[in-house]
Amino acid sequence: MMNFMIKRALELARRGQGYAHPNPLVGAVIVINEDIVGRGWHKKFGGAHAEIEAIRDAKKNGYDNLKNAELYVTLEPCSHFGKTPPCTSAIIAEKIPKVIYAIDDPNPLVAGKGKKILEEAGIEVVTGICRDEAIELNKSYLHFIETGLPYITWKIAMTIDGSATFEKGKRSEITGSESRDFTDRLRAKYDAVMIGAETAVIDNPGLRVRNKRGRDPKRIVIDSQLRTPLDSRLIAENSGQNTIIITSKNIDSLRLEEYRKKVEVIVVSDRGEHLDLNEAMRMMAEKGIIEILLESGGTLGKVMLSSNFISEILVFHAPIFLNSEAEKFNGKIAFCKKIGEDHLMRIKLK
Amino acid sequence: MMNFMIKRALELARRGQGYAHPNPLVGAVIVINEDIVGRGWHKKFGGAHAEIEAIRDAKKNGYDNLKNAELYVTLEPCSHFGKTPPCTSAIIAEKIPKVIYAIDDPNPLVAGKGKKILEEAGIEVVTGICRDEAIELNKSYLHFIETGLPYITWKIAMTIDGSATFEKGKRSEITGSESRDFTDRLRAKYDAVMIGAETAVIDNPGLRVRNKRGRDPKRIVIDSQLRTPLDSRLIAENSGQNTIIITSKNIDSLRLEEYRKKVEVIVVSDRGEHLDLNEAMRMMAEKGIIEILLESGGTLGKVMLSSNFISEILVFHAPIFLNSEAEKFNGKIAFCKKIGEDHLMRIKLK
Repeated sequence: MMNFMIKRALELARRGQGYAHPNPLVGAVIVINEDIVGRGWHKKFGGAHAEIEAIRDAKKNGYDNLKNAELYVTLEPCSHFGKTPPCTSAIIAEKIPKVIYAIDDPNPLVAGKGKKILEEAGIEVVTGICRDEAIELNKSYLHFIETGLPYITWKIAMTIDGSATFEKGKRSEITGSESRDFTDRLRAKYDAVMIGAETAVIDNPGLRVRNKRGRDPKRIVIDSQLRTPLDSRLIAENSGQNTIIITSKNIDSLRLEEYRKKVEVIVVSDRGEHLDLNEAMRMMAEKGIIEILLESGGTLGKVMLSSNFISEILVFHAPIFLNSEAEKFNGKIAFCKKIGEDHLMRIKLK
Repeated sequence: MMNFMIKRALELARRGQGYAHPNPLVGAVIVINEDIVGRGWHKKFGGAHAEIEAIRDAKKNGYDNLKNAELYVTLEPCSHFGKTPPCTSAIIAEKIPKVIYAIDDPNPLVAGKGKKILEEAGIEVVTGICRDEAIELNKSYLHFIETGLPYITWKIAMTIDGSATFEKGKRSEITGSESRDFTDRLRAKYDAVMIGAETAVIDNPGLRVRNKRGRDPKRIVIDSQLRTPLDSRLIAENSGQNTIIITSKNIDSLRLEEYRKKVEVIVVSDRGEHLDLNEAMRMMAEKGIIEILLESGGTLGKVMLSSNFISEILVFHAPIFLNSEAEKFNGKIAFCKKIGEDHLMRIKLK
């Protein structure tokens, strides 16, 4: 029963994906006699919290008295004044006798204080229900609170034997249209999509959410030498003002101005051969960009990996074996399966 | 009903795996009033065919009269005298009125003749039931009949980004123990396991079926310069006389004799830098080795691939990203799924 209700709250929380950050994704349900009478989720950064939305929804549904209700929520209710008043106050004011939540909020402004305040008001509090799912849902928020950095997922497409390009320096479409559609839909869930200058120059990608519903993420280019062409899609197609170019402090100011007329340009220090990526990522997090899909090729990807910025890799393998640039063997995946910690694919060559 | 019975026959056929080649894997069931009364499979090259085994089994079970029976078999019954008399004669003699089989036997000695003979004897014949499964089961036999060559599956283990070794020239265990167990069990299904001299020298593998039931496959080493050490496991541990070394005609005869005291050595012509692999593979097929698991590294694998000898690739991916020899990132597969023609893995870095 408690699992069931928290799972409903987790479903609601997911609706905030792409809008709530840097706040966490939170969902809540109000239950009376095992019926859900109110639903809420944190719809948008700065908007009402999930608990408040659920209370409002219950009232709208005719449940004015919540003295027999239970509140299920995916994260510990907040106890501080932020953009909105504390949720604990509203719960206490409504005399809700029982609160069940999945995980504590690690934000030092909350971190157990929410629970304490509720308990001191005589409210029964149960925690730890569907813990793993709730952690997974808010992995980027939790990572951000812990490190001050965005949670970065590196998306790469390669042949089964690890080639990301068929020909060096040329745009290669390794994977098929279904994989590209999947990536498209994926983008809508991230705060930003990030690439390096090399991808910007060679591929000239739009990095939009094509053909699908969902908002476009911010588009970040790591470009120490400001090589992204002014007529590239990331700069020329920037009506939503969502492209951010991160470049070096050493770039000539006239040149910077030229770019700044069209896109947001952020300058960071150099660190050896590269930009100070730690400074760059920290600045992104401060702007509320806490979940990034890195869609770069190997050059930037490997630097990010080396610097331990990457938490997850999404690897698309196309059923192609690239013996050499001249010899490409296409196959079909006949079977695939996890085997222990590893993964097995059976590829039938055509 | 017909599908169900052919599926039972396919299951029986699989029991011959590892023993029937170069004959096909065949299973048969005799059905009276929707009950299976006899079961048979081709147990061993040279032994009775599945149809005969099924008829014998029905009789052993007390069904002497098969005039109302149906025979389900995975392959067209043979019509020629080989190691055993033709199955068509036995079916006709038993007055079995109906025969259902999955696929025609492409062997020119049969190829439709079995069907014709049965029909001319007034027997109803139905074909094409579970066609794809039957083709898959006998892919190596069908390939051998068509090309005169063995069906070769290349098994490789690599990191998700395509590294087969952590350090060049050294033995690397990329995948985990479950994958190695899986490969072990796999070997029992092949006529032979094949490697190149490089693997023989660096890894010194046993290539046996360890800890598991199932017979050991033949062990083939492609070794143009006869580099496999005389004290290597493949030569020293050869009680079953199952190691075959394929080498060049140019090897000194005294040296050849030394090896021949311990293992079977086959000499083939050279062709450019390599051995004439076509000649070598044809000789293997003639010895009855028609299904080979290639467990070599990239060197031999790529040559075999280039020469179009490989029909299938079994690729094990370990959730490791090898940024460089010095930087190994270990992860965990959190999720995996086919997406269109491609495959997606979500790897959480530890």
